Amino acid sequence: MTQIEEARRGQLTPQMEHVAGAEGMDPTALLGRVRDGLVVILANLHHRGLKPIGVGEGLRTKVNANIGTSPSRSSVQDELDKLHAALEAGADTVMDLSTGGNLDEVLDAVVADCPVPLGTVPLYQTAIESGDAEAMSMDAYLEVFEKHARAGVDFATVHAGVTRDCIPLAERRLMGVVSRGGALLIKWMRKHRRESFLYERYDDVLDIARDHDVTISLGDGLRPGCIEDATDEAQLAELKTLGELARRARERGVQVMIEGPGHIPLHQVVENVRLEKEYCDNAPFYVLGPLPTDLTPAYDHITGAIGGALASMAGADFLCYVTPKEHVGLPGPEEVRQGVIVTRIAAHIGDVSKGVKSAIEADRKMSEARARRDWDAMLSLALDRHLFAQMLAGEAKDDKCSMCEEFCALKTFRPESVD
Amino acid sequence: MTQIEEARRGQLTPQMEHVAGAEGMDPTALLGRVRDGLVVILANLHHRGLKPIGVGEGLRTKVNANIGTSPSRSSVQDELDKLHAALEAGADTVMDLSTGGNLDEVLDAVVADCPVPLGTVPLYQTAIESGDAEAMSMDAYLEVFEKHARAGVDFATVHAGVTRDCIPLAERRLMGVVSRGGALLIKWMRKHRRESFLYERYDDVLDIARDHDVTISLGDGLRPGCIEDATDEAQLAELKTLGELARRARERGVQVMIEGPGHIPLHQVVENVRLEKEYCDNAPFYVLGPLPTDLTPAYDHITGAIGGALASMAGADFLCYVTPKEHVGLPGPEEVRQGVIVTRIAAHIGDVSKGVKSAIEADRKMSEARARRDWDAMLSLALDRHLFAQMLAGEAKDDKCSMCEEFCALKTFRPESVD
Repeated sequence: MTQIEEARRGQLTPQMEHVAGAEGMDPTALLGRVRDGLVVILANLHHRGLKPIGVGEGLRTKVNANIGTSPSRSSVQDELDKLHAALEAGADTVMDLSTGGNLDEVLDAVVADCPVPLGTVPLYQTAIESGDAEAMSMDAYLEVFEKHARAGVDFATVHAGVTRDCIPLAERRLMGVVSRGGALLIKWMRKHRRESFLYERYDDVLDIARDHDVTISLGDGLRPGCIEDATDEAQLAELKTLGELARRARERGVQVMIEGPGHIPLHQVVENVRLEKEYCDNAPFYVLGPLPTDLTPAYDHITGAIGGALASMAGADFLCYVTPKEHVGLPGPEEVRQGVIVTRIAAHIGDVSKGVKSAIEADRKMSEARARRDWDAMLSLALDRHLFAQMLAGEAKDDKCSMCEEFCALKTFRPESVD
Repeated sequence: MTQIEEARRGQLTPQMEHVAGAEGMDPTALLGRVRDGLVVILANLHHRGLKPIGVGEGLRTKVNANIGTSPSRSSVQDELDKLHAALEAGADTVMDLSTGGNLDEVLDAVVADCPVPLGTVPLYQTAIESGDAEAMSMDAYLEVFEKHARAGVDFATVHAGVTRDCIPLAERRLMGVVSRGGALLIKWMRKHRRESFLYERYDDVLDIARDHDVTISLGDGLRPGCIEDATDEAQLAELKTLGELARRARERGVQVMIEGPGHIPLHQVVENVRLEKEYCDNAPFYVLGPLPTDLTPAYDHITGAIGGALASMAGADFLCYVTPKEHVGLPGPEEVRQGVIVTRIAAHIGDVSKGVKSAIEADRKMSEARARRDWDAMLSLALDRHLFAQMLAGEAKDDKCSMCEEFCALKTFRPESVD
């Protein structure tokens, strides 16, 4: 039985207990949220050594790191290096988005080394093994999906909301379609002049997902790829479909979350989160960025953190990182590290603003240490101790730092606290 | 006559014309905003070679970089290096916050090399030349202020809103007072058991400011230094006083803007901007960060960019950068560069969201170039061309990049555009 089915019959699972403990949430309250689809527990029973996590209302905002090969860079070792960079930097989950090399081999190696929930996009392997998007079939898709489920994949992106009637809406756009999954399905639909097989045979996907408790992450194949396309008809039409598909998943006992944009100007971020919650009955919201400007290649991890912090504040539950290499090329381990760190900052800022107790407490402890000029305590609390320690060397000593030295405002204001 | 006085008699000045041209704003509309105190033009007539800028409603959000010596690091050359790093990275203004070495010499060297508006905090030099904060006097202060005005300083922070009745409010805080200016004045008030000389003799400051058209930047000496102290009684009491002081400045023909926090959780940022606009009759708002978490030493430039983007969206007009060395030590040129770049990203994101036409147009051009995979055009538009070019090397060629290669969604969706 899946976590949501267990929750419906009031059964607290070891996975729920683990998540409740990690988050400091009452287990019964958590169970209620899993039952109602407000929280998903990412935990495929085939994933050995997994520490399950929860995503959704009242929980800490989670951070995902995408890794994966491309056709010309397909070394298993490179992917393991990126995986370990993501884990060391504190990623809550990892997605293997490989499109090159031996895909099964890469996935098996990543699962084996990945103690956090792992996600995939089975459509990629389907397209690659079919030779071309136009040659894809539902049977081929289900075979890949089941293989991933049995390999231990905890959540899988399913672009079932990209339907035929959205194509003309996307054609009007400046940027068209920037989701690989969305574009592959549109290519297939154009060729066959038929509705998407993923939409038509969605229930077959749910059946496999249910058998292995793979959480469905409903992909936003029509997410806007630039500010000008944000919150447009194509995006919102798909989001409404995702709401229906989410209801069908829950009815069938499958956990489900919703993927979101993308390129969104800052003043539309809160509204985007509100719409997702409204259309999708408060299903957990998993956003990519969002990026509130198109102008910052080489800095899109920071741009994504700006959008992500606001999305998290507004109720997004799960942030997919963006790396400095976004819009440039495939990231390496150092870019993976940077992407995870800044996205963790965004998630934490969102958590402070939405009242997550552990986040507020962490800020308070840092400030107490800072008020005392207790550098060791600050180091022990910092999000990136290593870099902070490097920066502190030669700058801070005893109760002062090189910024103000004897003009430290804290000490001028509270001379007694120098001792 | 100052810019606001000229505006009151309907006189368009060369400075206003320059700003209107740079911003693509109708000069008469700009004049009206200068007259009403919604926009300030930073332009001291003694500042040779200055390109004046405007700060306020309807204009592009501006970015300030703080430089300056400390007692043990007081080389003029170091400051010039930081100045040039700030200018090359695109800072709109620079503040010299020096507290070490020969302050006059540093300031003169910086003014001479600074084509953008320059700001100072004359209270620092007053405290240093008095030997101790307790030995400061209004006469000494006015002497420093006039010296800075004659040297060409375009805007000066004046902490006149830190009054005696705020002291007990600040004493209740976790972090007390984190503004050097605020702490120096409180030390003086505690010793003399008197109201602040800056508050009592504020009109004398205005007279000098008016003579040289130095814009007064009303300092927030009681800005919160941690999330727990945000938007508290001390901060809001000072902000109300700043509103009165702003009115008095405008009445006396002096241009004025308001400085703002500081450490503010993300969900309070919009409200902080609204309160400033309400209490201060829509005077331009100049924020430091804000920092929506205390937890990120070594990354506070990014944290500040997250808060700054949202502040700009909500109506803040001017962002003071934060560097990666905030809460760690004095920044060097590389940290200055990083601070300016990420704060420019924040300002731009705010501008896109508040409808600044040039910002929206820049995003559109980048996306048009991206849709064509026109790397040269993207490079020419990027905020940091140098880093983007470095990253692109070996990653992108012809019409594809190493991220997706033949799985590029743009090309799958629009195969015709490959040509």
